[in-house]
Amino acid sequence: MTQLKNDLFLRACRKEKIERTPIWIMRQAGRYLPEYRAVREKADFLKMCKTPELAAEVTLQPIDIIGVDAAIIFSDILVIPEAMGMHLEMHEGKGPVFPSPIRTEADLNSLKNIDPTSDLKYVLDAVSLTKKELDGKVPLIGFSGSPWTLLTYMVEGGGSKNFSNVKKMIYNNPKLAHSILEKLSDAISVYLSAKIEAGANAVQIFDTWGGILSQEDFEEFSLQYIERIISNIKRENEPVIFFPKGVHSNLDKVANCGADVLGLDWTMDLGKVRELVGDKVALQGNMDPTVLYGDVEVIKDRALKQCNHMEMEVVIFLILGHGILPDIKPAHAKALVDFVKENSQQFHL
Amino acid sequence: MTQLKNDLFLRACRKEKIERTPIWIMRQAGRYLPEYRAVREKADFLKMCKTPELAAEVTLQPIDIIGVDAAIIFSDILVIPEAMGMHLEMHEGKGPVFPSPIRTEADLNSLKNIDPTSDLKYVLDAVSLTKKELDGKVPLIGFSGSPWTLLTYMVEGGGSKNFSNVKKMIYNNPKLAHSILEKLSDAISVYLSAKIEAGANAVQIFDTWGGILSQEDFEEFSLQYIERIISNIKRENEPVIFFPKGVHSNLDKVANCGADVLGLDWTMDLGKVRELVGDKVALQGNMDPTVLYGDVEVIKDRALKQCNHMEMEVVIFLILGHGILPDIKPAHAKALVDFVKENSQQFHL
Repeated sequence: MTQLKNDLFLRACRKEKIERTPIWIMRQAGRYLPEYRAVREKADFLKMCKTPELAAEVTLQPIDIIGVDAAIIFSDILVIPEAMGMHLEMHEGKGPVFPSPIRTEADLNSLKNIDPTSDLKYVLDAVSLTKKELDGKVPLIGFSGSPWTLLTYMVEGGGSKNFSNVKKMIYNNPKLAHSILEKLSDAISVYLSAKIEAGANAVQIFDTWGGILSQEDFEEFSLQYIERIISNIKRENEPVIFFPKGVHSNLDKVANCGADVLGLDWTMDLGKVRELVGDKVALQGNMDPTVLYGDVEVIKDRALKQCNHMEMEVVIFLILGHGILPDIKPAHAKALVDFVKENSQQFHL
Repeated sequence: MTQLKNDLFLRACRKEKIERTPIWIMRQAGRYLPEYRAVREKADFLKMCKTPELAAEVTLQPIDIIGVDAAIIFSDILVIPEAMGMHLEMHEGKGPVFPSPIRTEADLNSLKNIDPTSDLKYVLDAVSLTKKELDGKVPLIGFSGSPWTLLTYMVEGGGSKNFSNVKKMIYNNPKLAHSILEKLSDAISVYLSAKIEAGANAVQIFDTWGGILSQEDFEEFSLQYIERIISNIKRENEPVIFFPKGVHSNLDKVANCGADVLGLDWTMDLGKVRELVGDKVALQGNMDPTVLYGDVEVIKDRALKQCNHMEMEVVIFLILGHGILPDIKPAHAKALVDFVKENSQQFHL
């Protein structure tokens, strides 16, 4: 195994001593980069996900261009339902669509149990290839959607505003919802284990839609499956990051799910969260992605406040809360990364 | 002045003794009611807002049909920017559009200071007429958007996903943002004062988009203007409700804004919020509006849990967190209201 030249990110996840705050950016391999758009012109989104060479190429771009401290494999959370047998379409501007959503017991039975080494071989190949090409420069993060988040897409048939169909299911047929969530949890556990096996140094579980649930429903339909997945993932010391976007209540319970790191969005008060969760988990910080619309001086000012906050939090690292937006100037992203690298040492003495 | 026959809602707002939990539903005068759709067929949305007879008619509908404990005047938060001189269009399915958004100092200077008694006379007439027709049955609530929420629509030119333009403004030209917010605060203060003068028994300020800001930005660009408005509203004992949707951090500070009642959405843990804010304010509760997609037994089960929670919270009342959805069965809304009326006494002994 190649020795990592920069393992700051992994040490931060494990709450070990770090010399400065590591930084990566959600959706760092994305449309804001002209180099990404050049690849995207040659292949559609799903084709990119399914072609290991292309996935590896865009995964590596921000490492050199922006200088982030971790790579995150280019992929999509919906590859799992697709591998289970659902037909997936990506509509430009509209997002993902499952023309035949899951609404009944019969629909559930049509979903197959996946074997990632065959059904999602293209992701694992992308991980291995990226890992090789990274040559130990920075760690590689693998990811999955949470069972609840995948369920919303599978039941709604795509993105949704009010989540009427999945809410109807959890209220009127919770048994069916739980059966699908169990099947998804098993798939996600083997999928993340296989990613680690293929070379991922850490894995992140995105619960993008956990925040639309009341606390009671969040615990029943999301959190318990996160716990199950984390305890089932086969790993040595690869950290697990849980990012329950928009979940604000009972974070002390959430922090007990077994994850090493809790990801937070920009609306959270880091100090209050640390007070609440104690030192159970590392906290993954939370700049508002729209700060990058600001002038470079504004970006530096905000970044300094984040880094300062981090010192108080002992060990956390910087991430944009939701994901970098397509019309952000790459120079602004680079200015942020450079600034954090140069100015965060003072908070880690 | 007509004596109120049912003043439960107002007593709950003032944290006085109540016999049972009062209930009203956000967007209770809305598309889920066939009686509303019948009116809507005759007039478009803005025409309904601007015709006092129609606004009064739909405002009264849920009082008789659903049996809620308060009426809320049918109107829209964007009547203020329109009265200031912005051309407003309502696009079916797409929502509100301002074809000429506010982005520069010159745009700001084009906005006039409003006199509600002339510029928004139709709203005040609708309030007076509704008050008269209510004949003391239940209290009447008036409302306004918060300065921050209005600013987002005025700068973006309508609804938005990432709020790029308004975020650019607060980062790169905060002075301009503050100038517009000041102008809006003055307009909202006189507008809500005029609504009370016209007969509103309580007013609610909706900060629909406060939750997209970091805490620091929320305090700077939203909360300070709420404080200013509340201290400027001319009122006797009419309660002010502040509903900062999606704002979860630092609620103790938020509860200090001068409002009598803090509105919460369904993702909040009421017990934790009460712990945090003490008995400074009444809390306006927070059922998930999608619970009404559930069968009647599910609705009752959830309602009972809410009411129980309320007893713990001493004085609060039930509201759906965000607003009733257009495809909810009216019978489900009625079942909820009936159930709360019949089963919440036990928690107010």
